[in-house]
Amino acid sequence: MPSSKTPNLAIVGATGAVGQELLLILGQRTFGHGTLRLLASARSAGSTAGDHPIEVLTDRSLAGVDLAFFCAAAEVSRQFAPAAVDHGTVVIDHSSAFRMEPDIPLVVPEINGDVLDNFDATTGGIIANPNCSAIIALLAVTPLHRAVGVKRIVISTYQAASGAGAAVMRELQQQVHDHAAGKPYTQNVLGRPYLFNLFSHDSPIGSDGYNQEERKIIRETHKIWHDDSVQITATCVRVPVLRAHCEAINLTFNNPLSERDARVLLSEAPGVKLVDDRDANKFPEPIDATGLDEVLVGRIRADTSQRPGLGLDLFVAGDQLRKGAALNAVQIAERLVAANPVTVAQHGSGNK
Amino acid sequence: MPSSKTPNLAIVGATGAVGQELLLILGQRTFGHGTLRLLASARSAGSTAGDHPIEVLTDRSLAGVDLAFFCAAAEVSRQFAPAAVDHGTVVIDHSSAFRMEPDIPLVVPEINGDVLDNFDATTGGIIANPNCSAIIALLAVTPLHRAVGVKRIVISTYQAASGAGAAVMRELQQQVHDHAAGKPYTQNVLGRPYLFNLFSHDSPIGSDGYNQEERKIIRETHKIWHDDSVQITATCVRVPVLRAHCEAINLTFNNPLSERDARVLLSEAPGVKLVDDRDANKFPEPIDATGLDEVLVGRIRADTSQRPGLGLDLFVAGDQLRKGAALNAVQIAERLVAANPVTVAQHGSGNK
Repeated sequence: MPSSKTPNLAIVGATGAVGQELLLILGQRTFGHGTLRLLASARSAGSTAGDHPIEVLTDRSLAGVDLAFFCAAAEVSRQFAPAAVDHGTVVIDHSSAFRMEPDIPLVVPEINGDVLDNFDATTGGIIANPNCSAIIALLAVTPLHRAVGVKRIVISTYQAASGAGAAVMRELQQQVHDHAAGKPYTQNVLGRPYLFNLFSHDSPIGSDGYNQEERKIIRETHKIWHDDSVQITATCVRVPVLRAHCEAINLTFNNPLSERDARVLLSEAPGVKLVDDRDANKFPEPIDATGLDEVLVGRIRADTSQRPGLGLDLFVAGDQLRKGAALNAVQIAERLVAANPVTVAQHGSGNK
Repeated sequence: MPSSKTPNLAIVGATGAVGQELLLILGQRTFGHGTLRLLASARSAGSTAGDHPIEVLTDRSLAGVDLAFFCAAAEVSRQFAPAAVDHGTVVIDHSSAFRMEPDIPLVVPEINGDVLDNFDATTGGIIANPNCSAIIALLAVTPLHRAVGVKRIVISTYQAASGAGAAVMRELQQQVHDHAAGKPYTQNVLGRPYLFNLFSHDSPIGSDGYNQEERKIIRETHKIWHDDSVQITATCVRVPVLRAHCEAINLTFNNPLSERDARVLLSEAPGVKLVDDRDANKFPEPIDATGLDEVLVGRIRADTSQRPGLGLDLFVAGDQLRKGAALNAVQIAERLVAANPVTVAQHGSGNK
């Protein structure tokens, strides 16, 4: 990325659910940018998003682009990101393609944004956006981890359709219309009923029985925390919700933390909003998290199955498309630009 | 209950979701019975269920009834069950009213059905049907507990509308129609959107932050297992599913149990059906559990966050209205009748 106050941007995968949200968020933030190119596969080319034409992604598409958000599949990132970096582009990658590469930062700005301050963006590079379920959980759990050390985490997710992509969101909506019309459910994408149903996360399963989503939560937490010793298990489930993920999180601490102190830490945590009203039975719900930048946290209570102070239960809800994806990427871009304040007279292009 | 091969039955709360399922199951089983009276509140009186008229429940309604299924609210059980027992009726109670009474058996026939063999039904009495989430979890976990001892359980539930009653099921269905028609959601019963949403279980919350559903799972497991030392925590959540509950269950064992041995135990467990196909990504789903007598169990895998052999993850799905409620009650009745085989010439009534 040639240092610039108004970098030229591109969105790769601009027609997908995350790409569309990114476009929306760029319009809402004060992120000053130069040109904005929207790229997608040949299937989407020729269409437009707002005023912007959608171009076909090729090896040469990113010439002149300072900062590219990759919001497509991991295969697309693997194929096109290295060439973009060669052209001097900084890639902020939503996919899992590079997340576990030791030299590539995996960033949630509220948690480890400081790595961006030392990131040399002048010659291009890749920054990985973590898995959505990991981001949402870590916003709530990291402040507690820093205070007393988290020893073990048991996560059960309630994940929305959006994480499986725009086509799955449309299929869930279509099944609502099918049901209302008394017709058989359209199930071209998932091959199963989704309305009034839920199912184990639709990612491949390893020989140890964990699916990829569960492994991502475990490995990415270890990487972001720089601590492989934290014991983590997860069960990832897709529920018939459109775009906000929820997670039931059970924690075991190394050192005691009272429920009251946990509540204070969470009320002060960046990117977190407490919704924890026992009298009104009002806690985080996906519908309330939808469209919000913050992750909602509630059901904060001492886990009575563990020794006093050493266990805590939480329930979180976060917009998968915003903080779980597009917003986190824009926050990465904002901090990166702020950390590279050298102004160039003109936007560079192809300056390796 | 006067010992009889064909006892006279009654269903209290016959117009509710559980009452209706009970009526259905009685027609499907070979449970021979004498008369069958359907009772409900004054609101439902005058209507019929199939050929049966619905009568208003009063203190005298259960005279002549050998076995009464109470499927209404706990208040109704508290008000009417003692008088029924005075008349010699055996009450099988679905509510939580008497579950924790030390002298009242809390029964899942596959687990502790032997207590029914020693239950003196001749002078009436109460048998409690456990909480639906507890029944569904315990069918899967008890065989493992008996093999190696369960030390700790972390449960996250994905509970269906049916547990909140027929009116909530109808409201969820109505919201589907509202959404398809582009209208605001009807929310007279729950006061919140349920379609495309989920929320913390709608039961009162104690000062420790646990809701009643979570406490029931903990306490009833302790009672059914005769073991208060097992450490249990639970987070109960309602998801937009019609009538089957799912639960993500994380276990810590006292003694090692391999994933393979766990699978063997579960494949032989009564009332359990394995659905655990990693290649096809096919695991328990509420739609598949709906209408089934068995609890589906899958996602069986060693918990890599615990010492080898000492941790296991499971995912279960069970029909809340069948094994979670009505079927369990009918199984109790069947075993009770089988254990009290003395035939009387005529159905007794009011014989204290």
